[in-house]
Amino acid sequence: MGDKKYVYFFGGGKAEGRADMKDILGGKGANLAEMTNLGIPVPPGFTISAEVCDYYYKHGEKYPEGLEEEVESHLKRLEETTGKKFGDKENPLLVSVRSGAAISMPGMMDTVLNLGLNDEVVEGVARLTNNERFAWDSYRRFIQMFGNVVMGIDHDKFEKVLEAQKKKKGVTLDTELDTDDLKEVVKQYKKLYKEETGEDFPQEPKEQLWKAINAVFGSWNNERAIKYREINEIKGLLGTAVNVQTMVFGNMGNDSGTGVAFSRNPSTGEKKFYGEFLMNAQGEDVVAGIRTPETLEDMKRDMPEIYEQLSEIKDKLEKHYKDMQDMEFTIEKGKLYMLQTRTGKRTAQAAVKIAVDMVKEGLIDKETAIMRVSPNQLDQLLHPMIDPKAKVEVIAKGLPASPGAAVGQIVFTAQEAEEEAAKGKDVILVRVETSPEDIGGMNAAQGILTARGGMTSHAAVVARGMGKCCVVGCSDVHIMNENECEISGIKFKKGDWITLNGTTGDVIKGKVELVEPEPTGDFAELMQWADDIRRLRVRTNADTPKDAKNARRLGAEGIGLCRTEHMFFEGNRIDAVREMILAEDVEGRKKALAKLLPMQQGDFEGIFEEMDGLPVTIRLLDPPLHEFLPKKNDEIEALAKDMGVSVETLKKKVESLTEFNPMLGHRGCRLGITYPEIYEMQVEAIIRAACNMKKKGVVVEPEIMIPLVGTVKELSILRDLTEKTADRVIKEEGAEVKYLVGTMIEIPRAALVADKIAEVGEFFSFGTNDLTQMTFGYSRDDAGVFLPEYINKGILEKDPFQVLDQEGVGQLIQMGIERGRKTRPRLKVGICGEHGGEPSSVEFCHRVGMDYVSCSPFRVPIARLAAAQAVVREKQSK
Amino acid sequence: MGDKKYVYFFGGGKAEGRADMKDILGGKGANLAEMTNLGIPVPPGFTISAEVCDYYYKHGEKYPEGLEEEVESHLKRLEETTGKKFGDKENPLLVSVRSGAAISMPGMMDTVLNLGLNDEVVEGVARLTNNERFAWDSYRRFIQMFGNVVMGIDHDKFEKVLEAQKKKKGVTLDTELDTDDLKEVVKQYKKLYKEETGEDFPQEPKEQLWKAINAVFGSWNNERAIKYREINEIKGLLGTAVNVQTMVFGNMGNDSGTGVAFSRNPSTGEKKFYGEFLMNAQGEDVVAGIRTPETLEDMKRDMPEIYEQLSEIKDKLEKHYKDMQDMEFTIEKGKLYMLQTRTGKRTAQAAVKIAVDMVKEGLIDKETAIMRVSPNQLDQLLHPMIDPKAKVEVIAKGLPASPGAAVGQIVFTAQEAEEEAAKGKDVILVRVETSPEDIGGMNAAQGILTARGGMTSHAAVVARGMGKCCVVGCSDVHIMNENECEISGIKFKKGDWITLNGTTGDVIKGKVELVEPEPTGDFAELMQWADDIRRLRVRTNADTPKDAKNARRLGAEGIGLCRTEHMFFEGNRIDAVREMILAEDVEGRKKALAKLLPMQQGDFEGIFEEMDGLPVTIRLLDPPLHEFLPKKNDEIEALAKDMGVSVETLKKKVESLTEFNPMLGHRGCRLGITYPEIYEMQVEAIIRAACNMKKKGVVVEPEIMIPLVGTVKELSILRDLTEKTADRVIKEEGAEVKYLVGTMIEIPRAALVADKIAEVGEFFSFGTNDLTQMTFGYSRDDAGVFLPEYINKGILEKDPFQVLDQEGVGQLIQMGIERGRKTRPRLKVGICGEHGGEPSSVEFCHRVGMDYVSCSPFRVPIARLAAAQAVVREKQSK
Repeated sequence: MGDKKYVYFFGGGKAEGRADMKDILGGKGANLAEMTNLGIPVPPGFTISAEVCDYYYKHGEKYPEGLEEEVESHLKRLEETTGKKFGDKENPLLVSVRSGAAISMPGMMDTVLNLGLNDEVVEGVARLTNNERFAWDSYRRFIQMFGNVVMGIDHDKFEKVLEAQKKKKGVTLDTELDTDDLKEVVKQYKKLYKEETGEDFPQEPKEQLWKAINAVFGSWNNERAIKYREINEIKGLLGTAVNVQTMVFGNMGNDSGTGVAFSRNPSTGEKKFYGEFLMNAQGEDVVAGIRTPETLEDMKRDMPEIYEQLSEIKDKLEKHYKDMQDMEFTIEKGKLYMLQTRTGKRTAQAAVKIAVDMVKEGLIDKETAIMRVSPNQLDQLLHPMIDPKAKVEVIAKGLPASPGAAVGQIVFTAQEAEEEAAKGKDVILVRVETSPEDIGGMNAAQGILTARGGMTSHAAVVARGMGKCCVVGCSDVHIMNENECEISGIKFKKGDWITLNGTTGDVIKGKVELVEPEPTGDFAELMQWADDIRRLRVRTNADTPKDAKNARRLGAEGIGLCRTEHMFFEGNRIDAVREMILAEDVEGRKKALAKLLPMQQGDFEGIFEEMDGLPVTIRLLDPPLHEFLPKKNDEIEALAKDMGVSVETLKKKVESLTEFNPMLGHRGCRLGITYPEIYEMQVEAIIRAACNMKKKGVVVEPEIMIPLVGTVKELSILRDLTEKTADRVIKEEGAEVKYLVGTMIEIPRAALVADKIAEVGEFFSFGTNDLTQMTFGYSRDDAGVFLPEYINKGILEKDPFQVLDQEGVGQLIQMGIERGRKTRPRLKVGICGEHGGEPSSVEFCHRVGMDYVSCSPFRVPIARLAAAQAVVREKQSK
Repeated sequence: MGDKKYVYFFGGGKAEGRADMKDILGGKGANLAEMTNLGIPVPPGFTISAEVCDYYYKHGEKYPEGLEEEVESHLKRLEETTGKKFGDKENPLLVSVRSGAAISMPGMMDTVLNLGLNDEVVEGVARLTNNERFAWDSYRRFIQMFGNVVMGIDHDKFEKVLEAQKKKKGVTLDTELDTDDLKEVVKQYKKLYKEETGEDFPQEPKEQLWKAINAVFGSWNNERAIKYREINEIKGLLGTAVNVQTMVFGNMGNDSGTGVAFSRNPSTGEKKFYGEFLMNAQGEDVVAGIRTPETLEDMKRDMPEIYEQLSEIKDKLEKHYKDMQDMEFTIEKGKLYMLQTRTGKRTAQAAVKIAVDMVKEGLIDKETAIMRVSPNQLDQLLHPMIDPKAKVEVIAKGLPASPGAAVGQIVFTAQEAEEEAAKGKDVILVRVETSPEDIGGMNAAQGILTARGGMTSHAAVVARGMGKCCVVGCSDVHIMNENECEISGIKFKKGDWITLNGTTGDVIKGKVELVEPEPTGDFAELMQWADDIRRLRVRTNADTPKDAKNARRLGAEGIGLCRTEHMFFEGNRIDAVREMILAEDVEGRKKALAKLLPMQQGDFEGIFEEMDGLPVTIRLLDPPLHEFLPKKNDEIEALAKDMGVSVETLKKKVESLTEFNPMLGHRGCRLGITYPEIYEMQVEAIIRAACNMKKKGVVVEPEIMIPLVGTVKELSILRDLTEKTADRVIKEEGAEVKYLVGTMIEIPRAALVADKIAEVGEFFSFGTNDLTQMTFGYSRDDAGVFLPEYINKGILEKDPFQVLDQEGVGQLIQMGIERGRKTRPRLKVGICGEHGGEPSSVEFCHRVGMDYVSCSPFRVPIARLAAAQAVVREKQSK
């Protein structure tokens, strides 16, 4: 036996492990130990450390020396504690073997129950329990599970044997099979086992045990588990631990049962004990969602004592862990056992409510509450809901498994869901039930609808984790084949539109209008706490008064990026834009720009009005001019006719503007340098709008932002132009308007020479989309071809366009800020790329001392919370 | 009068200035002072400092206080020294007023001669010189020059008056006009002056003087001068000084004359006194190239005493300045005066020869010799010459004004030269004579041919400065109009091909084959000295054995960049490449790659053989695959037929590979990651070739270079792949071949994380072309639209694709080297962008501690010399 301890015992009121040993015992093992130490009834057992899993994969799937002996000795201790013996037909020890990593991966890894049964032991169990049917049912379940999980025999093959027996007997439910039927099933199962594996079903319990342990460790790196970790970004774990635990039986008759319970409602967060259970069943039956379970209300009515005991345990655990608990329990012949407790997964809505409630209950403080909600999860709360005013045709109702609303076209397989979503389609995945193989498709879908399963079924648990709208257990759904289904008798084909309401469980025919939710109540309260603590300001990227209004409602403290070019496309403005581009000379361009001026001015007035009292950063024209011209021949011909120029001339112009690499071409401030009249017009529109609004009593703070600056001279030329124009307009209007002139830092060179640029620029806004493109040399439009492979191969941890690359791009940002502030100590610095609404990037922005982040309206609350968490984490690390 | 001294006197054997005061006195003024102090006969005068010019432009074209008085007092001193008086008709002082900056800008700024003449003084001069015709000729010249230079009256208008008078008189030469004719011309000139300026020609000499001084200072910023400084990259000067100097007259009869002389031949460098002069002429007549002058041989024969005196002065000056001198002199009635001396401009050939000769003569040391040749100038020596074996039809002979050969299509105007060259055409500019307005066209042309002018004519001087092939004074050239000319009776139209030999003066009909020159003789000697001193190694970018051979001949010490993709286009390889691209799967790609393998192997064998004993860096495939497919419909159709696939399929493939920004797309190591089989094939070809050559006794040092790396993981994956493949091949071949695996640093991120990349990479090669593109966000293919304007507006000092941007891109390079060497102290570092052959960039590479630069074969000697100069400069700065 080696020096290192690999196995940890729990049972008899004491345990070697603790809740804080999750890294090596896994969540399940650590909590079993903790519960044992808390005096809660837990069937005794032992946990094989996740360090063994780590060792196993680092040493060509071999175990560390001494492990076998250590397991043996713990098995012996278990036999002593329970008074039962492995393989003893008089008083046999039966165990479950379960995986359990430090982070929960529900249903992703393997579990074997009833281990220890064999042809002799089954007889002993029959005798001991005085329940022959139970013994044989357990044995057939064990062979099936062992055959499937450990030996890889297709689950359906076992199911076919069972179905055949039921058919022979003329019954429909498993429970209608009697002992002889089950004996026959066991016989057939063993035959199947031999056919499939070439060997007899192992009768030696220790052989069973080791095979099961191997299977659990092996399941750590199966495809499903790897994909799950990828999607959920689970990294840095040692592996899974293995829990070997004395079996208790929920299927020992109608005084037995098994279930799961949450200390609060995981969907709404309501402080109400919440759970589901099945009588006369084993645990996997609940999770698999095959039978629709009973509720805790039913238990309270039917087994008040058990309910009371369970409720007390729940209170004890929640108070102990100071968080909402997700528990598994089994009732064996009227006696309650706890098989698991863990921090419960929850919807965003529940997370917010629970966090706020617990503060009010005095369980946790505000900072803890802030850390309890994952910023990305807020997406769920902020996602559209069904428009209350919309006329909807509810055709069926299922369980509201994961809230929010979803609209999409029906698909029937996970693969199709992925394919169609990749084409940009919104799809709803409709399934009888989901299984771990469907993860990819569930992720790709807008929402999930299943015909079977409860609130803790696979579909429900996974969808909640993903923050996806999900309705489960909708028995009115009948799937005919991979192309059609009937819902309440109405036929739907693949591609037909359907709408789900995951908050109510409604299934709605057709495409329904969705609306934005209001950020009020608990959410508003939590966000207020976040706002109180955060230092980073949060602005929004908004190009229209409507966006600006929405963002302000969600807490935006200004506009960090208002793109003026989107305005160029609206209505018939594009005609004037094109006239400007096609003009032969400055005079022609000025004439066309004069038409655009009042329209742009109007836009800005609307935006300033909505942002009364808050700063508004407006970026001057950025995209290359060819983006405003058509590319295809027929469009060019039509435009030529419209504009009264020859097709030839227009084609020539289009061709002359075409670029090999538009990303690196004639755009941004390069346009302002070569066509100063464009920027002049824009500055005039901004300042005139500001003056007009000021006269109406609106408080305006325009910040004029020059894009794509790479040299200080570009900025100084354009700052001069801006000031000349602005000062002229201010004089003409006779209004006192203050404005700033700054620049985006989005070219690597700009970050390198930021000290010089700050001599001229009054603020910096990091344009991390372009900065990422240029720092990596990735075209965002083209990188899709290789980026997924790069992430799969671990070349990149994450898509750098979604999550800021702190290692590379981050260096340039830090450099830019440090050098900029060296020249201009109070330089205002922000970020306006997509990253401004991504939590880990927001934390980075906080750390490097930015003044604000700016993101899409919808992500403003996410940024607010992430900014607050950054402060808490900073405190914690001190 | 202010405290500051602005005016410096010279004359009477003593001067206030010195040769090392060029910054404020200009080259001309400083050297006039130095010559005066050396006891050389220089007409007395004074120099107004260039600081006045600086002040003038910094203060809204106003002079510093006290300047007027200072000029007055120096004028008085000049009168005292000469015994003459301004405006005195008895003994009048006449002066020249000339510009002169610290760096010579021949013909670029304005000069006024004979200043001081008026209606009365002219009579005095006539009396004093007893030469009425001379006096009136001088007066008419003065009015003409003053009118043109000071008042901006078109030169042609004066010429027309003169022509009219000659026609009236029935003569053709100016000298055939008598005094009365000249008096009439003066009358007409004054009339013209009044018509054009609205005022009378000024009779007051001081008024003339100040107007001329104003004109000289004003000429500093005329268009010509600005363009000249741009082309010649002259920066940081205060401005021009103004030299006011007593006139001496080369046009006082046939015992007078004026000329220029070089202490050695500026074209060949031969140590032979070399010059040209015109009898009875003023200086500007020689430079303007209007009359073809006499040589110093003529002078030696006709005026041996003057020749002897001039020759002694020449020796004195060369010994004093330790460099070849370019002198101007005037003989007034048999008395010699020196009007200027300066370091003579020279061809590359002359620069090399003079530098080497002077070392041998003990005048200078080797380091000085190395600094005497501008690396860029070597271009001239290395440029192609006419193939000695080519059959050429020499149709005319002119003066060999600037050596080398040039082939091109005839154009007749500078504008056309610029336009056609911009289209990528090679043009020869054919002109009667050139003038400063032609600078742009001369720069754009391959070579210049003029009908008139001598070796020191405008065309000759400028062409030599540019290192452009030039033949001047070819009297067989007759230009009919802007579309045709006759050369020795043969008609040539615009666009016809012609070949020039600037070394012999031959004008050759048609397009003649050119060959590379041999780097031998003085050149080889100088380069040897450079090689002895430099630390930086010089490699070459070469993709073929032919290029490799040529580069080695020019001194390359290895290959720094061998691009494998160029090989993909050769012969029918492209078929296999396309087959590979169109393959449906890995197997299909491997099949096609197997066809390419032996071809690539053959290429590498050839290159290894040529580079026996030297390192060869081979870059694996870099460009995106779509570069190997046709783009146009008809080409796609043809290819589809060839390949036996449907047009539809091929079009789809082409479309699927199309990228928005190919520069930032699926290329470089990204291909190696997604299609490892391509890199595997290439590595196999390299290593098999190396093994084969090694077996034949060739010493091979392959360095395998992975392009476009941005993350360490890319490199580690591809290094593993490379090593696995290489080690397999080495084992199969049973040859001991050592190789390195390294990477290009060409993505900004790579420089930022160079410490990590150096953990895996054994060498770095900075790919500054791409690094510049990404650091600036400029697409090299598209930036042409705005870069010229950026340079004109001073946003960029130079085109960053030609001259390394040390301020921005340079920071990334320094960072990359420092961080790389922190991890791997002996990391081999080089550069393989275009900048590796640009002198200032080479010096940068030296300074930041690179091991080598790599450049095109042709630029290898330039890099060698630049690397040596970097060492000398480093020593000097210590």
